[in-house]
Amino acid sequence: MSLSVESHVSIERVAIVGGTHGNELIGVFQVRKFAQLPHLVQRSNFETLTLVSNAKAVEARRRYIDTDLNRCFNPQDLQNPNLVDYEQLLAKKIAYTIQQEKIDFIIDLHTTTSNMGLTIILHNQHPYLLRLAAYLTTLNPLVRVLVHQFNHDNSYLIDLCELGLAIEVGPIAQGTLHAELFQQSEALVGAILDFVERCNQGETPEIPETFTLYEQVKILSYPRDEHKQIRAMIHPQLQARDYELLHPGDPLFLGLDGEVILYQGESTITPVFINEAAYYEKDYALGLAIQQPMTLSN
Amino acid sequence: MSLSVESHVSIERVAIVGGTHGNELIGVFQVRKFAQLPHLVQRSNFETLTLVSNAKAVEARRRYIDTDLNRCFNPQDLQNPNLVDYEQLLAKKIAYTIQQEKIDFIIDLHTTTSNMGLTIILHNQHPYLLRLAAYLTTLNPLVRVLVHQFNHDNSYLIDLCELGLAIEVGPIAQGTLHAELFQQSEALVGAILDFVERCNQGETPEIPETFTLYEQVKILSYPRDEHKQIRAMIHPQLQARDYELLHPGDPLFLGLDGEVILYQGESTITPVFINEAAYYEKDYALGLAIQQPMTLSN
Repeated sequence: MSLSVESHVSIERVAIVGGTHGNELIGVFQVRKFAQLPHLVQRSNFETLTLVSNAKAVEARRRYIDTDLNRCFNPQDLQNPNLVDYEQLLAKKIAYTIQQEKIDFIIDLHTTTSNMGLTIILHNQHPYLLRLAAYLTTLNPLVRVLVHQFNHDNSYLIDLCELGLAIEVGPIAQGTLHAELFQQSEALVGAILDFVERCNQGETPEIPETFTLYEQVKILSYPRDEHKQIRAMIHPQLQARDYELLHPGDPLFLGLDGEVILYQGESTITPVFINEAAYYEKDYALGLAIQQPMTLSN
Repeated sequence: MSLSVESHVSIERVAIVGGTHGNELIGVFQVRKFAQLPHLVQRSNFETLTLVSNAKAVEARRRYIDTDLNRCFNPQDLQNPNLVDYEQLLAKKIAYTIQQEKIDFIIDLHTTTSNMGLTIILHNQHPYLLRLAAYLTTLNPLVRVLVHQFNHDNSYLIDLCELGLAIEVGPIAQGTLHAELFQQSEALVGAILDFVERCNQGETPEIPETFTLYEQVKILSYPRDEHKQIRAMIHPQLQARDYELLHPGDPLFLGLDGEVILYQGESTITPVFINEAAYYEKDYALGLAIQQPMTLSN
């Protein structure tokens, strides 16, 4: 696949958001730091706003109060007056703010208990985003680019803008900070702002000719017993092996009773978000992604 | 220090407890497994009961509903009719059950986000517990024995019996399972039950002449700014270094602004529970323990 340069995009207002999940502390503390030291996120040719999106959940040290805020931004839901859970109302307020403030680029800061390193999540393949993502992969070998299009209903905060991305850093336990990941996450934010500044100036930041795009295509659930209780754990040989190839016949789960459950797929695939804490309630044990080599024109 | 053999102790009823913190899943799933497969915890000369102690918190995927259950067992609090938070009432019910069931040994299963390996926590130095702990250290080099006596008000679930211990396994994120730690935790429970069975029979399980006891003597808090907000994280050089010696002048915290804060103590000490998620609200960044070589007589 080849992409032409998108020279038309000019960003005027960027929002850096943390605390969309209240127990993902790196984003919360990052945004607080940027609010205290705004020169860190100021650039010459656009405005930057910072937002702790779910301060009440942060205060409660929980992912959310009533429901996952980061599934409340579907346009139909935002228009639905019957949706009045705390996060459903909060989403409407945030959507209004993003619109009023004329935000045209969103960076949403997340953490994961999975060994996802420094993952850039895109919800579409806009050439501007792909070029930015390719640029970020050159900064740190832990940077990987994951596209979430599968089964996607535009219900995430970043879906409020065409241009936006989430940064997922891990592994880190919910409710904790981690100095190294904090610094790496901050460096990514800085690099994104630099990229935007240079593109706004008409410069073309140097990007690699090709990079790897991971596209999530499937979710695997936990095996359950007749009472719907989880009856198996991520197998030790799969634990923390995000982005390492999974082959047909490889161990996937280890039953509480010791049974080994193998991957039954027909071809090699890339596991992502293995054993993410917040996904237990979503019945999501791991995601499966395919690798796409992307070629960009300079 | 030398200890004589305690041959008088005979255990009649053991309770294996999980879910005292609702988001520490290994204990919850372990106890459910034992309830389904009781032969795993049955032994010839005592009874074993299993208990998920805070099922409502497990259901809510949270450490607790109103307050930390594992700080509600102080005898005065159990007698205080004014304490009616959910966990305060639950503690009274559990204390009554433990008494009615004539439980004389408690194993309480916990997990931690800190790299505590397989830690046996004792709340007193009863010779029986020390001999058991020494026995467990022979089974796996990750087993360490930590005594919590400092600042201790008998408010933990295991304080309901003179003989009891907590098993803390980590590192593991709250709200997740981890197959290897699950198996290691289960093996420890089995070994404890074997030890009790053999002692009840008048046998003397072979124990090492000496082992290392860690005694927690101090807690270090997070540095805070003028608004009482945490302003520094565990330093990368200290992260996950539980049980590795900390020397005066070693880095302790890394400020959000990059400032390095050094350990100011006068002597070398052992850090424990570094960066435990549940302790952020308790303002406990890490514990400091001293090592005591213990000599036991066979």
